[in-house]
Parts: sequence; C-alpha cells; structure tokens
Amino acid sequence: MTERARAEQITHAYTDLRVNGDRILSDLAALAKIGGTEEGAVNRPALSDADLAARGWFRQTTAESGFQLREDGIGNLSAILPAADPTAPTVMCGSHLDTVPQGGRFDGALGVVAALEVLRIVKQAGATLPVHLEAVSFTDEEGTWAGLLGSRAMAGQLDDEALDNVRGGREPFAAALAQAGYSRESALNAHRDPRSIKAWVEVHIEQGTRLEEAGQSIGVVTGIVGIMSYWLTFVGRADHAGTTPMDRRQDALRGVTSFLQQCRELVMNRFPLGVVNSGIVEVRPGAFNIVPERARLALEFRHSDPGKLDAMREALLNLALNVVEVEGLKLDVEQAGSHQPEPMHRDVIEAIEGACGLLGLQSTRMASYAGHDTQSLAHITRAGMFFVPSVGGASHSYREFTPEQDCVNAGNVLLQAVLSLAMG
Amino acid sequence: MTERARAEQITHAYTDLRVNGDRILSDLAALAKIGGTEEGAVNRPALSDADLAARGWFRQTTAESGFQLREDGIGNLSAILPAADPTAPTVMCGSHLDTVPQGGRFDGALGVVAALEVLRIVKQAGATLPVHLEAVSFTDEEGTWAGLLGSRAMAGQLDDEALDNVRGGREPFAAALAQAGYSRESALNAHRDPRSIKAWVEVHIEQGTRLEEAGQSIGVVTGIVGIMSYWLTFVGRADHAGTTPMDRRQDALRGVTSFLQQCRELVMNRFPLGVVNSGIVEVRPGAFNIVPERARLALEFRHSDPGKLDAMREALLNLALNVVEVEGLKLDVEQAGSHQPEPMHRDVIEAIEGACGLLGLQSTRMASYAGHDTQSLAHITRAGMFFVPSVGGASHSYREFTPEQDCVNAGNVLLQAVLSLAMG
Repeated sequence: MTERARAEQITHAYTDLRVNGDRILSDLAALAKIGGTEEGAVNRPALSDADLAARGWFRQTTAESGFQLREDGIGNLSAILPAADPTAPTVMCGSHLDTVPQGGRFDGALGVVAALEVLRIVKQAGATLPVHLEAVSFTDEEGTWAGLLGSRAMAGQLDDEALDNVRGGREPFAAALAQAGYSRESALNAHRDPRSIKAWVEVHIEQGTRLEEAGQSIGVVTGIVGIMSYWLTFVGRADHAGTTPMDRRQDALRGVTSFLQQCRELVMNRFPLGVVNSGIVEVRPGAFNIVPERARLALEFRHSDPGKLDAMREALLNLALNVVEVEGLKLDVEQAGSHQPEPMHRDVIEAIEGACGLLGLQSTRMASYAGHDTQSLAHITRAGMFFVPSVGGASHSYREFTPEQDCVNAGNVLLQAVLSLAMG
Repeated sequence: MTERARAEQITHAYTDLRVNGDRILSDLAALAKIGGTEEGAVNRPALSDADLAARGWFRQTTAESGFQLREDGIGNLSAILPAADPTAPTVMCGSHLDTVPQGGRFDGALGVVAALEVLRIVKQAGATLPVHLEAVSFTDEEGTWAGLLGSRAMAGQLDDEALDNVRGGREPFAAALAQAGYSRESALNAHRDPRSIKAWVEVHIEQGTRLEEAGQSIGVVTGIVGIMSYWLTFVGRADHAGTTPMDRRQDALRGVTSFLQQCRELVMNRFPLGVVNSGIVEVRPGAFNIVPERARLALEFRHSDPGKLDAMREALLNLALNVVEVEGLKLDVEQAGSHQPEPMHRDVIEAIEGACGLLGLQSTRMASYAGHDTQSLAHITRAGMFFVPSVGGASHSYREFTPEQDCVNAGNVLLQAVLSLAMG
C-alpha cells in the first residue's frame, strides 16, 4: 500500500492534530530525574522508593491536566479523559514507568509520556470522541517481582500461583505492595471487563537496531515473540581432577559445552527469525579440583511464530538428548517459563500504518523480540504497538537513547492511531 | 631389575619382620567410626570436632603403644620411637587423619595407621636402629583451611600471607586453631631442622584405577604433579537476549564454550600425561534474558614434568587469547595457585622397590596426579611415597575402598622401606 493510500484510510475530523513535542521532552526529562543516577541511568525498580516517586509524578500530572485518576488493586495508574456518554467504551494507550536496575530513560517512560500527551491534545482541541480515552502506566513491566505484573492483572491473567512465585519471595513482595497501598487480594481484583475496552495501542523504544539499519522511523509490530525457558541439567560423575584419566571422565560441563556450540548453529541455520540465549551456568560441586558432576544451564529461546517456537523447543530438547547420549551423561529438563507468541490485531496495525502515512513517516512491519504489556492486553481487546528507533540498539543501560524527533514522532503516531481507533 | 635383584638390595638384619595385619584393620575400623556417617563416609574436616576426636585417638594409641608424643604448633602429631643416641637423625613416615567433607575411610588414615604399626613392630622386635622413628599425622592435608597446611608448616613453607588467605576466613580459622590449642604464632614456629631428618616415606591409596587396571599391588611414585590454577574471565557485552540479533552478540559464554572444547583436545593430544579440569563457571549478570557479559572459568591443570607443566600453561593461555581474538571478546587472567612438580628422591624410590621385591609384590612406577604431604617434606629431606589400589578409583566418597590384603601390603612395604632407609 502506498503512503497516499494509507493516509486516505484516515478519514476522521482530527487529522490535523499534532502533539506538543516540547511537552513530551520536558516530561521525559522530569522522569529521568526520578531515580536518575550520575552517569545518566535510571534506577526505578517496581515498588521501590523511586518508583513510588514516579507514581507521584503521574498523579500530579494527571491532576494538573484535568484528567480523572484511576488506580487499581495492583497499582496500575490511569489518566482518563471521559466521553460524554458514561457507558461509552474506552480506547487505551500507555506503557510503564518502572525500570530494570540501572536502566534507561526511554524504556516504558516514552510510552506513558506520549499517552498522557495524546489525552492533553485531545482535551485542548475540545474534540468530541465516542470513547473514553485512558493513558495507563502499568506496574512492574520489567519483572522486579513478576514480569508484566500489572498488565497481566488487568487482563485477568494473574493467579495465586503467580503471586506465590514472585522473584524476591512472597514476604518482601507483600511488604512492598503494602507500602505502596496495595495487597495480594486487591491485586487479584484488578482485572477489567473486556467489553468495556475498544482497543489498546502502545509505543515503545525498539531496543534493537533494525529500524536504525533500515533507515525507518516507525516499526509496526505484527506480533510479540513467544518466549520459552528451560533449566537443562547435564549430570555426569564427580571425580578427582588429578587422578581420573581424561578419557574416563563423565564431565557434566562437556555436555553444556557441546550443547551450546550446536545450539547456536541450529537456531541460526534452521530458525533464522528466532533467537536463543544461555545466561546462567551453575556447576556442582564447584571446585577447581573436582570434575563437574552437574552443570545447570538456563536456556531461553524466542520466536514470533507459534509453530516455529514449538519446533525450536523440540529441536533444542532433542539436541540436548543427543548430546547426553554422545557424552555418556544424563539430562534433567525443567520448564522455567512459557509465553505464547501474541499476534497484534489487524485493526491496530492498520491504524498505526495509517497514522504513519498521514504523517509522512517511513514505517516497516516487524516482530517484537521483547515482551511488552501489549501482549497481556491482547487477551482482552484489539491490541497493537509500534517502535521508534533506539540508537545503537542500547537498552537497559545509561546508553539508551532515542533522538528528540523520534520521541515526537512517537507522540504523533500514537495520537493519530488512537484517534483513528476511537472514531473508527 | 628383577624382583630377586631388588630383594638382594635389602641387606639389613630385619628383613623377616612383618606387620600385624589385624591391628592395621582394627585401627582403620576404629578411625572409620570417628566422624563416620550412616552410609559409610567419614566426615572429619581439619579442626572439626571429629578431627579433634581423631587426634584424641592418636594420642591414646601413642600412649598405649609406649611411644613418645610430639605435638607442634600447627597441630601435627607424632609418635616417636627413639634411638639410643638422642642426637641420632629421624626417619619419618605417616600421612593425615583429616578428610574432605563426606570423605572415605582410607584416604590419609591408612598412611597414619601403617606408620604407627611400623613403630609398634620395630619396638616389639626390640630392633636397635641408628635413627629415631617417627609416625606423623599432619594437620589439614585436604585443605579445609589450606591444603598441606601441617606439612608445609613443618617444611618451613608457611608464611603470613598463606595464613591470611585461608579458606573460610581469618577469624574462623583463628577460632578453630584456638579451640584445638594452637595459634597463628605457634603455627609459624612448627618448622623442623632439615639436618635432623634422614628420610620420609608415605603410603596412600591411589585414588585412581591405574594399579587396578595394570594388575599391580604397589605404585611407586616417581614424582608428584605440579598443579597450576587460573581464573580465566571472558568479557563480552551484556545485551537484551531478544532484541539483539544472534550475529551481533558478544556473548562471553561463547568464549568459555570454544575454549573448553579446544582445551581438552589440546591437552589430550599434546600433553597425554597431563590432565586439565574446569570445575567452576560463573556467568554475569546471570539472567535467562541477558546475553552474558562475563563468564569466569576455573582452570586447573597438572603435569609431573616441570617443563611440560610450563608448556601447558603457555599453550592454554595462548589458546584463551586466540579464542577471545576469534570471538571478539576480552580476557582477564588471574593466577589462583601454583605448585611445582616434586620429583621423589631416588633413594626412597629404591627403598620402596627393594621392599616390594623382598615381599614378592608387583610394583610399577607412576606419577601422583594428586597433591600429598610428601611434596612438602621433599623440601627438607629425601622424600618418597607409594600407592596401594583404590577399587574403581573411588575416593573422597563413601565408595572409597581398599581391600584388606592391600592395607596389609601397605604396612609391610612401609615397614621394610623404613627399615632400609634407617639402616642404609
């Protein structure tokens, strides 16, 4: 489809509205100070003091802008610009204000700031929409306690088991919730009625280099990768590292070594759109002078195609079985997590592409290789998201940077996509 | 040399003396109960309550046998059968009574029990020797605090730095020493005058399968391996495990993988008498979803030939440098330990082989791939040692087992080797 054809899809009355770029940049600068470090990182893990301060900023901005505040039982905060008809459905947009430890200034924050700006522009214009508009900041997208915690709660995807198995432990989590004014019980009551929500859009930084390399301004997400994670434990025999001849050892670490080398080749050759990582290795008993008896490997792989993701799982687990057969070891397999790929809704993809066409911005379709709150929202409404470029792909780091024009583009594409979904 | 020729080397007056095998076995059984576990392991780490109880057993046995007791400032205990001439030199034998956690019944204990039996037989026979005989039990051979602690102290190889860097920390070590009746100061005064010692012999279980496979009763040690250990840290770049394309990663764990595969081939092909082990891997930051920035590998390699050990070090460190060059990583190298190979003294080797010939026992020369107190003693006297078989090579385990006849052989070879060195 040409840009002209795309632009012609946008037929509502507010195609001339644009965000106030300075306001977006000044909001981002204000947030960068909350939990900001000397080197330019942002340290705002969910429910930390800095995160609570960022929530204060959100409440204050909401009040100053004349929006209603909504706060649910897991701490998701919303600014609401209501429609005239209280029974109207809601078009939602937003992201998250929490960060990983020593994270960046744009990951999450840009999506919240852009969403608030969308509401401000619509309010200023006095536009009459047939929907409520809602700008959301979700709790703990990054998984300080549990990844996508707030959005999963909103989508009704949270249960007792998830709350029992938070990182950091149940008691510290309960204490952190209580300090912020929430509880386990309130968290389980945060789900929203799908019938009340018309659509969801999120803008986020890419955290990769594909847009930069392709010279594109906007990445329209077609689907969010599924992520599977396993603990693979290779089991051999502990032996004296001096007296046991090299060719008589059952060295568990050899299993890891052989697996990792073949695993990378397998994924790059057979699943070129997939990725795989091993971020943890634990060796037992763990001494200079003892041949490893057990080597435990954290394996994570991602693909945006459900069929390919299943095929990756089968191929990788078969590879591990083959390795232990060849090396004379045993294998323990324990699943550590599983998120299915989430395709984005066609209506939202088209609304985003229409907005890009209207604004004259080059866009490309792409999969998201990272998880995002949008995948939770996809369970309860038409959901979609788009990326703006990350310089050098840096993220979760003080090096994270998105140029000013791209931040402004984020706001304008979000504005026009939201308007399109609201009016359509 | 034929067995007959070897036997003819033994010309002293006591070639008919033999140990009391039942006494050796009953002493081993008594020691196995001190720190013994239900499954048959022995848990007697140095300076633990069980180790202190084993010291009580040594003192009591020494007293009951009518020997003098010697106790030095690091807790080495000796039973002494004095010569008529108080200025005579000493022939020493022995081993250690401490174990690794959940260790076996024979590692160390056999050498102490056999040494005590040697003194008992000589005393019973009323033999008049031109030397004092001394049966020693060394403190902490296994390295609960510091490997070869007692024997290094006796050899004058211990200094402040070694005492500062004990495993478990300075304060707990000082407390454990104090509980046993020793101190840091007394430890540094435990060294013996080399001129007072004529020779040293140790018998130990093999902790390997070479004797068993060769059908030999006695392994005459020609040298104790040198051991070098290093921390190799491969440094790459932490990245998002989803959004960073596979071919753009600087994955530190790939350095470890590539190094380990080539390292094994290199040692087995170029250094067939050497061994190498990697018993610890630490990955940072250490998360399922972060590409490893740092992977730290514990590398240990052993060879009994000093020139080959140096060549191994050079080849392995060059290999690591080559790997980081190929993989686009950086390398940090930190030496963690270094023990030079210790050749055994020819006189002691010949005394042991002469004893085997006299007793009609098949022996073979071999290197020791494990460290032993004998390597400390080699600094101050003519030192040597020999092995008896370990069934299946099992050691540091409840599975550790040496048949009764081999335990008795241990005593008889030690007896005749000690007599030969005493009279020669």
